[in-house]
Amino acid sequence: MNYSAQFSTTQNHPLDIDTATLLQQVVEAWQLLQSRQPLVQCITNQVAANYAANILLAAGASPAMIDNPFEAASFAAISSAISINLGTPTTEQIQAIKITTQTAHEQQIPWVLDPVGYSQVLAWRSQTVDEILQYQPAVIRGNASEIYTLAGNHSESKGVDSVLASAEVYVHAQSLFSHTECIAISGESDFILSKKDQVVFKVNGGSQLQPKVTATGCALGALTAAYAGVSEPAIAALAAHIHFAIAGKLAFEQAQRVGQFNVAFLDEVYALNADKILAYADLEIIPLG
Amino acid sequence: MNYSAQFSTTQNHPLDIDTATLLQQVVEAWQLLQSRQPLVQCITNQVAANYAANILLAAGASPAMIDNPFEAASFAAISSAISINLGTPTTEQIQAIKITTQTAHEQQIPWVLDPVGYSQVLAWRSQTVDEILQYQPAVIRGNASEIYTLAGNHSESKGVDSVLASAEVYVHAQSLFSHTECIAISGESDFILSKKDQVVFKVNGGSQLQPKVTATGCALGALTAAYAGVSEPAIAALAAHIHFAIAGKLAFEQAQRVGQFNVAFLDEVYALNADKILAYADLEIIPLG
Amino acid sequence: MNYSAQFSTTQNHPLDIDTATLLQQVVEAWQLLQSRQPLVQCITNQVAANYAANILLAAGASPAMIDNPFEAASFAAISSAISINLGTPTTEQIQAIKITTQTAHEQQIPWVLDPVGYSQVLAWRSQTVDEILQYQPAVIRGNASEIYTLAGNHSESKGVDSVLASAEVYVHAQSLFSHTECIAISGESDFILSKKDQVVFKVNGGSQLQPKVTATGCALGALTAAYAGVSEPAIAALAAHIHFAIAGKLAFEQAQRVGQFNVAFLDEVYALNADKILAYADLEIIPLG
Repeated sequence: MNYSAQFSTTQNHPLDIDTATLLQQVVEAWQLLQSRQPLVQCITNQVAANYAANILLAAGASPAMIDNPFEAASFAAISSAISINLGTPTTEQIQAIKITTQTAHEQQIPWVLDPVGYSQVLAWRSQTVDEILQYQPAVIRGNASEIYTLAGNHSESKGVDSVLASAEVYVHAQSLFSHTECIAISGESDFILSKKDQVVFKVNGGSQLQPKVTATGCALGALTAAYAGVSEPAIAALAAHIHFAIAGKLAFEQAQRVGQFNVAFLDEVYALNADKILAYADLEIIPLG
Repeated sequence: MNYSAQFSTTQNHPLDIDTATLLQQVVEAWQLLQSRQPLVQCITNQVAANYAANILLAAGASPAMIDNPFEAASFAAISSAISINLGTPTTEQIQAIKITTQTAHEQQIPWVLDPVGYSQVLAWRSQTVDEILQYQPAVIRGNASEIYTLAGNHSESKGVDSVLASAEVYVHAQSLFSHTECIAISGESDFILSKKDQVVFKVNGGSQLQPKVTATGCALGALTAAYAGVSEPAIAALAAHIHFAIAGKLAFEQAQRVGQFNVAFLDEVYALNADKILAYADLEIIPLG
Repeated sequence: MNYSAQFSTTQNHPLDIDTATLLQQVVEAWQLLQSRQPLVQCITNQVAANYAANILLAAGASPAMIDNPFEAASFAAISSAISINLGTPTTEQIQAIKITTQTAHEQQIPWVLDPVGYSQVLAWRSQTVDEILQYQPAVIRGNASEIYTLAGNHSESKGVDSVLASAEVYVHAQSLFSHTECIAISGESDFILSKKDQVVFKVNGGSQLQPKVTATGCALGALTAAYAGVSEPAIAALAAHIHFAIAGKLAFEQAQRVGQFNVAFLDEVYALNADKILAYADLEIIPLG
């Protein structure tokens, strides 16, 4: 097995941060996830509920799918972080989402927004997303189509899967910095925009089979929330995406069919450790602007 | 491995169609599914949601579980096909089902009806099924008990699993041709009734473990919808049932326990190809009358 | 493989029951489950729905997730047993839960209560639990925190996972005997309190990975209901917990990572038999009082 870290930094630009320092912060985030096992309230969709809970447990967090409006505020108040996913909303979930994100904002609990399916065609959920942006998510995470449209651009929707490439989209996403500290766009490579550092983290890895497993994006949003319960937004998003990129890469080495890949992926989410982060993370830093 | 096709045609009846031609149409349907990746709107139950999405992704389609009444019409209008499953309905799902099927009918988008649990005991969902039959599903798919009762016969219900054999039921199902082009009855062998051709396709295969995995029937309904997005109703139903019959047969050769079978089945749904269809499809054509 | 039964009885107390007799009753319960395949109505949460259905099918029962208030009473009336789980309640589920448990009580159909998340923080569901206790569940099953709080003690909640050990809690749970015949507390060891026999069955086994798989507790509640459809409450709870303890132990021998463990666990739930029950059950009987 090739255990050599793949670091690279875009040349010709004096950055305040370097990949070695970043990866050390990712290792610390992962260690904090193990020791603190943050309680993560998840309001998610019917497809992702079981899968996201299993991913969070495997990664070291403590998930709780509390998505009714009658318990949303009191539970949000005791959570370490909150994951909001608009995949298959119901009226009661929409109510719970508004109450939960407002509570999170008031009590400074980090929450992650996954605006699944954001588009003109899915107007009801999209209006809810517009409304809760005022409650300042720590991270907005989505695929390229969702982020592109949410940032005020016009795009074609094809259901809940992206028709755009993440690399084309990140340059158009910065308008969302008025609402959040961090924007994460998943795709063949993932692009994570940090407002504070004014840089993009490009994370390579994963597997071509990940888009063939449903709810991996949703689970990645939930994992980003779990990390946001123990570290600052951009590091949380980076840690979650590296966690998935390494697990996907190692799982695909063991299993090239979706059923077996699914099993191996959960195994590798569970089996991550500091050595693997340092050995397998494939990260580039690109200046914004 | 025994790679010999098993064709058979009921003798003594001059049929306009033969198994070789049919299997070629199934191969073409499967190829279209791969190239077009049809967007399939699914309104399904809490048990099947994740599983059906994974089956559709593995098979080559693009699933989207849009099941709220506020987005149902606009999303149906951009879908290639729609899967309606009455497994665990909520009031909002029932509303969405009515809106979606009406939209599908008006815009000539094929939709597949899976009347899970249709019976006197489950009257609420059954009344909804009765009501939406006017919107002419391309295919009605169910187990023997459901189809038998839906066709106007009286049967005993035992929950959502069938107490009748599919072979006994198909002769009683033709009254449903006033509402649909195709009726598919799953069981130890599957029986697919084509109104246009006035024949029954009998599909053998699968595995004794399939009834031990929940939501396989529901996922088969969703897959039938995916195929209906790229081919005509009876071929779509035939292709979906052959897809599952071959995957089930090959999975059982690898795994004889439910957990492992589940994994292998998803692998084989993903790994189907034209050669396997021609080699493993076990199909009989029976005249209706 | 070490095929020797591990029996032990607390000394110095003349008990009316012994482990050998109990295990024979568990074997008989398992055999009845196979032969009768009881229909089990489940009202459960979005995380557990698929998993619990697969566990019930693998174990030999026939699950049906009927959780709407419009069909709850009629379906409860034809069910052999009912599983009520408060994991992610909706308003319609709460209505269905009240109707179903009242029907079960009137028609003497055994039902199992799993008060997921019972706590001050989750007041809405907890009030529902308080209200339906009047309908006399055959078994109340939960983790240590839930049972401790439900029995009238004050505890800290951390979401839906327990912060207390089952061994510390069972002595405080007996006040619940005014509502039920049997109280089952899951944990590293499980403690099952029988009102009739005034004893505690302590079940050892399982695996350290079970808490890393979501909804195992919920599925255990559903399996307890399935057994309650064929045997008396305390034997039903004992059989379900032994079923899971053996499956967990044998699965962990094959798989030490969560993804593979998950698959192996379902395999072992399916592969249980009388010989394995007698060989692997690890049971102690402790007098109450």
